[in-house]
Amino acid sequence: SINATRLMSTLDASCSWGNTPDGGMNRLALNDDDKKVRDWFVEETGKYGCHHKIDEMGNIFAIRPGQNNNLAPIGLGSHLDTQPRGGRYDGILGVISAIEVLKVLHQHDITTYAPVAVVNWTNEEGARFPPAMLCSGVWGGAFTADWAHSRVDHAGATLKDELQRIGYLGTVPSSCDVNPLLAHFELHIEQGPILDRAEQPASVVKGVQSMRWYNIQITGREAHTGTTPMESRSDALLGAAKMIVATNKIVTEGAIFERGGRATIAVINSAPQSINTIAGNVQLGLDIRAPADSDVELIESLCRKQFQKISDEHGLKVAIDNFWVSPAVNFDATMVQCVRDSCGSVGCGTIELVSGAGHDSVYTSHKVPTAMIFVRCRDGISHNPAEYSKPEDCAVGAQVLLGAYLRYDDL
Amino acid sequence: SINATRLMSTLDASCSWGNTPDGGMNRLALNDDDKKVRDWFVEETGKYGCHHKIDEMGNIFAIRPGQNNNLAPIGLGSHLDTQPRGGRYDGILGVISAIEVLKVLHQHDITTYAPVAVVNWTNEEGARFPPAMLCSGVWGGAFTADWAHSRVDHAGATLKDELQRIGYLGTVPSSCDVNPLLAHFELHIEQGPILDRAEQPASVVKGVQSMRWYNIQITGREAHTGTTPMESRSDALLGAAKMIVATNKIVTEGAIFERGGRATIAVINSAPQSINTIAGNVQLGLDIRAPADSDVELIESLCRKQFQKISDEHGLKVAIDNFWVSPAVNFDATMVQCVRDSCGSVGCGTIELVSGAGHDSVYTSHKVPTAMIFVRCRDGISHNPAEYSKPEDCAVGAQVLLGAYLRYDDL
Ligand SMILES: NC(=O)NCCC(=O)O
Ligand SMILES: NC(=O)NCCC(=O)O
Repeated sequence: SINATRLMSTLDASCSWGNTPDGGMNRLALNDDDKKVRDWFVEETGKYGCHHKIDEMGNIFAIRPGQNNNLAPIGLGSHLDTQPRGGRYDGILGVISAIEVLKVLHQHDITTYAPVAVVNWTNEEGARFPPAMLCSGVWGGAFTADWAHSRVDHAGATLKDELQRIGYLGTVPSSCDVNPLLAHFELHIEQGPILDRAEQPASVVKGVQSMRWYNIQITGREAHTGTTPMESRSDALLGAAKMIVATNKIVTEGAIFERGGRATIAVINSAPQSINTIAGNVQLGLDIRAPADSDVELIESLCRKQFQKISDEHGLKVAIDNFWVSPAVNFDATMVQCVRDSCGSVGCGTIELVSGAGHDSVYTSHKVPTAMIFVRCRDGISHNPAEYSKPEDCAVGAQVLLGAYLRYDDL
Repeated sequence: SINATRLMSTLDASCSWGNTPDGGMNRLALNDDDKKVRDWFVEETGKYGCHHKIDEMGNIFAIRPGQNNNLAPIGLGSHLDTQPRGGRYDGILGVISAIEVLKVLHQHDITTYAPVAVVNWTNEEGARFPPAMLCSGVWGGAFTADWAHSRVDHAGATLKDELQRIGYLGTVPSSCDVNPLLAHFELHIEQGPILDRAEQPASVVKGVQSMRWYNIQITGREAHTGTTPMESRSDALLGAAKMIVATNKIVTEGAIFERGGRATIAVINSAPQSINTIAGNVQLGLDIRAPADSDVELIESLCRKQFQKISDEHGLKVAIDNFWVSPAVNFDATMVQCVRDSCGSVGCGTIELVSGAGHDSVYTSHKVPTAMIFVRCRDGISHNPAEYSKPEDCAVGAQVLLGAYLRYDDL
């Protein structure tokens, strides 16, 4: 059994760097606080018999040998980076639960059949270096290391420079072929309201919905707000506003809404940002999701049509760059069964979920048997300092992870 | 008569600092380029018999004595600061035309009845330190010097610190009582399309329309874009987009549109600017104008109603700060007649205008007889690097300024 008190005190320790005044976390990938928590992760896992591999994307594999060290390790992974205004659970609880599994093995002097690797994946959030799950994506062959290295943050720093700066540009190739895992389990908070409403502390995750990200550039004509007649304007911000409203309308009515389609614009940059100059350039970030790939495609095509119509009406130019496509994923049946059995053994309830959020398990699932465990979080709130999971629920989740992992190791 | 070639070469000289690659100007108030053009202005006007007064707002008065130096000088003023992406004429042409008047007086060894002051008003654009016409406003008693000194730019620098930094924090009180003018003429480009459509090179300006500026804060709830159901969101950016669209609708239909009401949102700041976190906070800058004060009030009240309705529908909070009110202004009849006569003497056409843009003359008009001259600009485009007035039209305008000023000095 896992030790619930120890689990929560490890979580507290891991949240020592990057706190916000309102009780949340601001630990963007590869910033100084991310370096500190990485150093802590290496030291902490080292205490429980692990040696470390750091790959060229800064992914850290803390490996505890098993009986058969010619086998690749079974991965227990998630991420320690956060949103700019995130919580203490998203990603962090997954890594901390995996460390708790290590501690249980170590405490009971268990040598598992296969080695085990606790994995901290780099830049899962994608908040600093879009897209999300970038470095598990490189490991899983979805992106090249060169492309990922060249991603830039808002201030113009590249991911590679930042890896180098904080000392986590490893030499191991980031590749499931060169540095393989046997399988990948990931515990994560649900980040949605279903378990909270159902009063179920944890659940099996059977897969992840489809998602795409877009960069949209809108070009109009700068002009004086006081002198330019309303009918002769090409107002890029007015066009952008109409696109935001149109996007929301597409996913809040009819069949697309019924089937769970979602679309959000949460990033906007307008120029020249002068109160008496009509905006000439606006950039938007668009996030489209749905359980079915076909619905994501449908929402995209409806958005494209609306955006063009709005642009034509206002004399604007619009350019749409779909820079990330992550199709829907179904997890491995055997792995899911291990999680289901483990859930059952702690009386976890019967609801099984498909994830609305992306996770590193999306990219591991393309290459190795993968499954996930969700832990209930209050009101489904995440990407918010108010994110919260009860200690009891965290403990149930970690226990399910331990049980699922040991079942798979047995198999 | 003014010298058209000399006028344009002085304009070129004054545009030596703060050019943009696309032929426009980026000379935000009190930046390094503004310091350089101020130094040039002091040197240049000094060559034509002027001494200088610099007030505590950095307004520069280049004074050429007349026959009666116990009289306050007649002011010929405008501004040398620009929008972040502005043109070479807005404000600049007014100061340069006033310098051309100086040169004509000097060349012909004319001693006018009253002294004359060429004035460079600080921060007319309001682009760096809102509101607009801030320092003519202090001189005219609309704002206190302390309040204006404490205005901050986007980076947090105060106007007073920046005056000090560039060496233009004068010791003369900024006050029409302590440092008076007898009257104020201002030449400016129209910044709108009416003269261009009418093929009239310059015109009388009879007044300035009513305008108000607002800061709007919208607060929602940050949450995950992938996991948060569409129906349980408080999306501050979606709310802001609906407010932008609603504002536009109010002024583009019915009687308000017919009466020339205008409303624009050109500044937007959203947080936390992460593509997968629903925006929790958005700030907007709103600019409302109309010929009649009552229409500005009506547009404001309609906006307030719509903003509250949208906020209620989406579970948002909205706070509206109306930080600038500039009522409609009618210029002095005698001054307008001087401009009208001067226009007539160069065969300028019969159209007379009310300004859609604010000008330093708004605040001088509250205290001393004031009138303006507009010069046609291509397609009415302003606050844009493409802003352009033909040299012939600039010359007509400067000639009208000279004639109007000499008429008033005679009176
Ligand atoms: N779990 C999580 O918040 N991941 C970020 C990727 C996404 O936007 O879904
Ligand atoms: N002339 C001019 O562009 N002034 C700025 C003040 C305004 O926004 O009208």
